[in-house]
Amino acid sequence: MITEKNFYTIRPNQEIFERIQHEQKRIGYYRLPFADIRDIVAFAETVAQRTIVVIGIGGSSLGTRAIYDFLRSRHSFERELLFLESTDPLDIRAKLASLDLNDTFFLPISKSGTTVETISLLKYLASLIDLTRENTAIVSGEDTLLSRFADAHGMHRFVIPENVGGRFSVFSAVGLVPLALVGVDIDNMLRGARKVYESFFSQGASYERLMDKGRFYVENKTRFSVNVLFSYSSALEGFNKWYIQLWAESLGKVNINDTRQGLTPIGLIGPVDQHSFLQLIMEGVRDKTVTFIKVADFEEQIIIPKGSVFPEMGYLDGHSFSRLIDRQADATIEAIARLKKIPYDVITIDKVDEYNIAELMYSYELLVSIIGAFLQINAYDQPGVEEGKMILKEMLNG
Amino acid sequence: MITEKNFYTIRPNQEIFERIQHEQKRIGYYRLPFADIRDIVAFAETVAQRTIVVIGIGGSSLGTRAIYDFLRSRHSFERELLFLESTDPLDIRAKLASLDLNDTFFLPISKSGTTVETISLLKYLASLIDLTRENTAIVSGEDTLLSRFADAHGMHRFVIPENVGGRFSVFSAVGLVPLALVGVDIDNMLRGARKVYESFFSQGASYERLMDKGRFYVENKTRFSVNVLFSYSSALEGFNKWYIQLWAESLGKVNINDTRQGLTPIGLIGPVDQHSFLQLIMEGVRDKTVTFIKVADFEEQIIIPKGSVFPEMGYLDGHSFSRLIDRQADATIEAIARLKKIPYDVITIDKVDEYNIAELMYSYELLVSIIGAFLQINAYDQPGVEEGKMILKEMLNG
Repeated sequence: MITEKNFYTIRPNQEIFERIQHEQKRIGYYRLPFADIRDIVAFAETVAQRTIVVIGIGGSSLGTRAIYDFLRSRHSFERELLFLESTDPLDIRAKLASLDLNDTFFLPISKSGTTVETISLLKYLASLIDLTRENTAIVSGEDTLLSRFADAHGMHRFVIPENVGGRFSVFSAVGLVPLALVGVDIDNMLRGARKVYESFFSQGASYERLMDKGRFYVENKTRFSVNVLFSYSSALEGFNKWYIQLWAESLGKVNINDTRQGLTPIGLIGPVDQHSFLQLIMEGVRDKTVTFIKVADFEEQIIIPKGSVFPEMGYLDGHSFSRLIDRQADATIEAIARLKKIPYDVITIDKVDEYNIAELMYSYELLVSIIGAFLQINAYDQPGVEEGKMILKEMLNG
Repeated sequence: MITEKNFYTIRPNQEIFERIQHEQKRIGYYRLPFADIRDIVAFAETVAQRTIVVIGIGGSSLGTRAIYDFLRSRHSFERELLFLESTDPLDIRAKLASLDLNDTFFLPISKSGTTVETISLLKYLASLIDLTRENTAIVSGEDTLLSRFADAHGMHRFVIPENVGGRFSVFSAVGLVPLALVGVDIDNMLRGARKVYESFFSQGASYERLMDKGRFYVENKTRFSVNVLFSYSSALEGFNKWYIQLWAESLGKVNINDTRQGLTPIGLIGPVDQHSFLQLIMEGVRDKTVTFIKVADFEEQIIIPKGSVFPEMGYLDGHSFSRLIDRQADATIEAIARLKKIPYDVITIDKVDEYNIAELMYSYELLVSIIGAFLQINAYDQPGVEEGKMILKEMLNG
């Protein structure tokens, strides 16, 4: 009898599940939806300014923007949320020109506290207006340049736990503070995330769905190396960008067998991209999976009137745009289904609210953890972006 | 002696060049920069409204938006340009809410004249305001539903030539009319495109550069199947989207040997994406080429003051954001160069003006034609997006 232990087999689902259960002790994002948010809610009530400006880049802004863009398409918030993130001087000029600095609350967000873009922007801002406890609060790691700055100025500060990575931080203070400030119901948001957590860790419906999907991606990673997200609402563009970061930065890694891994994310918006990128999906090299995201109820009745102009296209009359975009999604899905050659799935969002977008985002975080475990990579670090940062520092010093 | 004629060899550059020279008789976009634009310029002077709304999707809006977004980051135009394209009801509601319909000029653009999104939006708009010669002009094919509508209402109309495809139409009336209306110097724009044309067809510098690049992509299409555009300016986001459509819809095709072809485009914006997607490029599967696009001179001096806050990061002090973003691009380029494993190239845009963006866009159109010729595909049709359109019509009729 011989006993064999090999690295080649894709591990059984149950083993991956146990690994993820165990990972919860080490990786902080899993339990974020259970945190006490009373401090954040209470703080939000003390802020009077009409505009909130997040100064942060990458994981410090993408998740917040995804949720804000999604919700504000439907809800009108009392306060406006802006993001200062790029060092593009034209972008900085344009955004600052639209701001009343005296009616703005600043929220610098950086886990390391030394992010070049964030600190550069703060250095410049501090030359335009005094940054004080009255107009600034800080979200950063426990003991960083930025957190010490907050303490020295008596500013409120919120801590990003050491074991929560930027791209997994939307349910920490990183996302909760700015979203609470503009009036998002962050309690409802966390409820949506908790629902997915409970379902997954009790091996319910989410477990089945996410495990099957993650396993398929890994088993077919060479054949289908590109994962397209085809979102049928303009309001999901921010979500697409967040997905792209989460996917690319978590899964583009060298694994324990010293082998390069990585799945390439693409974000599309329907119906716009069904006029273009769809051609590549349908007739190009078959290296893509497609996930459609639909909104079941936009709660917005705009009707194409009966008897309107262009009677030659009367088949459009009487339909609502809600139904039209829904049918456009269905028609694209059907066109792909008929080929029987392109793996696809459909996610339907019940309605445009915090609960639903949080459910979607938390599911994607879990999916990435599952794929990372199957691939035997560390989904939570990002060694490949450090080299550029060091070179930049040398260049600027030199 | 045997003589062999085979389909396997990638054809010599000279043969591809001759094919493209010949193609000019059949494919209309090549000669667009030489067209007479006096009619368009004269028409633009007659329009008094403060807001211009393009109603068009895909090739009817992406190119115009790319140029407008790029230029308006630097220049302030007297008129505002908006795009109604999606059937997303929340998007429609938000855009219409921001409009003064009585001070808006509408520009429906559709080559076929029967684009579902465009006609649906027009049907709805016509129930809100009378569309007349005073507030509407049409850009469409010579004899379409839309052009007949224009004639019936005595509206100005501009023709999209039959042999110019949507994604290659930015230098036709599709792009020129809306851009002239907001005050873009379309003459300077066409000059930029003509410069590339002259250089390419006289086998000058553009010929060498584009031919080498196209050939490399085709020779390595299996190994490097994903082409990343890494643009270092927020104002190039529209250009990235245009590139994605052009690339995906033109190159995702079945070729004359009945073999699926296709290169997958990705658009990134630096410095934002150097905090995320860069990880996948550096450490993931090596299936990507990278093209960096830099702006040499933003003509915008925002300086990080000396002696500012955060003295611990004093190496940032005294630099302009212009220089900072430039060095960030250089640092990312250097990090990739040091690996010696990832094919990359760098395009530098002299300054933010019409001439430069037109040069860039016309170069990309030529590059796509070259790659299409090498791949032995028809880069100008889009059979793969028709099926979904037919299914939609059935669904809406049923």
